[in-house]
Amino acid sequence: MTGFTGSPLDRVDKLRSDPEAFIRFTSDWRGRVLGLEGLDPMVSAEGTLVWKGMADIAANAELVLLGLINDKPHFVELTTAKGDVFRSPAIWMALSVLSAEDAAIYGTARALIDWHNSHKYCSRCGTESELFRSGWGRKCPNCGTEHFPRTDPVVIMLAEHDGKALVGRQSRFPPGNYSALAGFLEPGESIEEAVRREIMEEAGVVCGKVRYIASQPWPFGGSQLMIACVAEALSTDIILDTDELEAAMWVTKDEAAAALAKAPDAIFNAPPPFAIANTLLTRWVAGE
Amino acid sequence: MTGFTGSPLDRVDKLRSDPEAFIRFTSDWRGRVLGLEGLDPMVSAEGTLVWKGMADIAANAELVLLGLINDKPHFVELTTAKGDVFRSPAIWMALSVLSAEDAAIYGTARALIDWHNSHKYCSRCGTESELFRSGWGRKCPNCGTEHFPRTDPVVIMLAEHDGKALVGRQSRFPPGNYSALAGFLEPGESIEEAVRREIMEEAGVVCGKVRYIASQPWPFGGSQLMIACVAEALSTDIILDTDELEAAMWVTKDEAAAALAKAPDAIFNAPPPFAIANTLLTRWVAGE
Repeated sequence: MTGFTGSPLDRVDKLRSDPEAFIRFTSDWRGRVLGLEGLDPMVSAEGTLVWKGMADIAANAELVLLGLINDKPHFVELTTAKGDVFRSPAIWMALSVLSAEDAAIYGTARALIDWHNSHKYCSRCGTESELFRSGWGRKCPNCGTEHFPRTDPVVIMLAEHDGKALVGRQSRFPPGNYSALAGFLEPGESIEEAVRREIMEEAGVVCGKVRYIASQPWPFGGSQLMIACVAEALSTDIILDTDELEAAMWVTKDEAAAALAKAPDAIFNAPPPFAIANTLLTRWVAGE
Repeated sequence: MTGFTGSPLDRVDKLRSDPEAFIRFTSDWRGRVLGLEGLDPMVSAEGTLVWKGMADIAANAELVLLGLINDKPHFVELTTAKGDVFRSPAIWMALSVLSAEDAAIYGTARALIDWHNSHKYCSRCGTESELFRSGWGRKCPNCGTEHFPRTDPVVIMLAEHDGKALVGRQSRFPPGNYSALAGFLEPGESIEEAVRREIMEEAGVVCGKVRYIASQPWPFGGSQLMIACVAEALSTDIILDTDELEAAMWVTKDEAAAALAKAPDAIFNAPPPFAIANTLLTRWVAGE
């Protein structure tokens, strides 16, 4: 299973579109609200998410219905707290202890909070918009435009040639860390075309056939859909775009396996298990 | 090849981020600007897109650099013309004659025009924003937020059971037309999770394993990334969500093949070749 997937929440699409059902849910004494410290998840001594009762929430709180678990409504309260995942040790620690299910719930909540904070105004006419659809949308009171949470497709991929895969590092990575190349898919592109373009732009490597491996949501820096692929490289010379990458290299399956196993003689550090680049490297080593 | 892919345009990411290069491109007498009638493509007698020279463009036109072909800059001029693909016979006729390359160029241009029209204001602070990055972004002069073209991932899929696939029809479809089920992927979901949720919501069918088949951009009604999959159904009873679908049924490979071939005895009409649902049905019939 890829990171941030496996949420047990039933999104009850029919019910969340019904304003009366939302009022019923917010009046349900069994309701629970996700515990946050700023934008980071509160984590219990047992390593689980912390849920608060409805009585702990201010009367004017803006609640988003995450969904139901065992018929109990689960919410997150919108907050304007600021956070930066790349500088929050708290979040990396939380992700190393939370179960997959809890990480998926937090990821969904975090993506929704960030989207509301960056979309308070109607992009069509500039008027302040209002929550609707139990928090899964915003509506403009002036022009009536309905806005829905944005998710940006990102391709993340290994170019493959003669049993070796291309990995790269950005200057902001911790020392020794390498990962798959990645970039935003653009309007007018298929997944396969975006994969080829990004590898060409960042590393100057020409690719042919592309195969899909896995996907996962990524809730930081805007909500993203990570789409992991392997591309057959038709050339091997690396021409680095130094604005994007500090270094790139071709690694064998043994070298990738050593990195994933955190072997002492590994020639690079692999990304953490909740990042899809880890899944991608693992499946590539396994021959997928 | 899926519809709206295969564009020959080089997007020159480095150059389009350079304001001086953009000025050079717009002063290049070899530059070409896409011919549009409203939002529809102008089509020549030979069935190709029509390109205008830079001299035909008003001095205050807002141009987006689509990219280069043979080093020649190709642009589209932003327009506030309104269009609705579902009511434009002109566009369906154009798509039936344009080459794949031309359809892909038009799709990219159309997606960018629609995005600019629905994102004139900063969603973070409500201020009118300005073009930057050769038209591949907008920047807020008040809060400095940079906005990039939005592409919504959509899953489109066949549930499969015992050699049959599930197809459905929306009430707005032409009579007799059936297609794959489809829906927007949401924050906090993988592709596979969105596929299972949508089939359950629309048809009440439980699915297990999901396999990826193909992808394509879809430039109408907002820029979308269509992600086509086949899901293994674990149940077969159809419980229709009549808000979404008017009818749904299980069809055999022979029945799908007859529909794709437009056989006179076909029990339904298949989607057109430039829609990925056609690709998906074709590949499913072929055993993929």
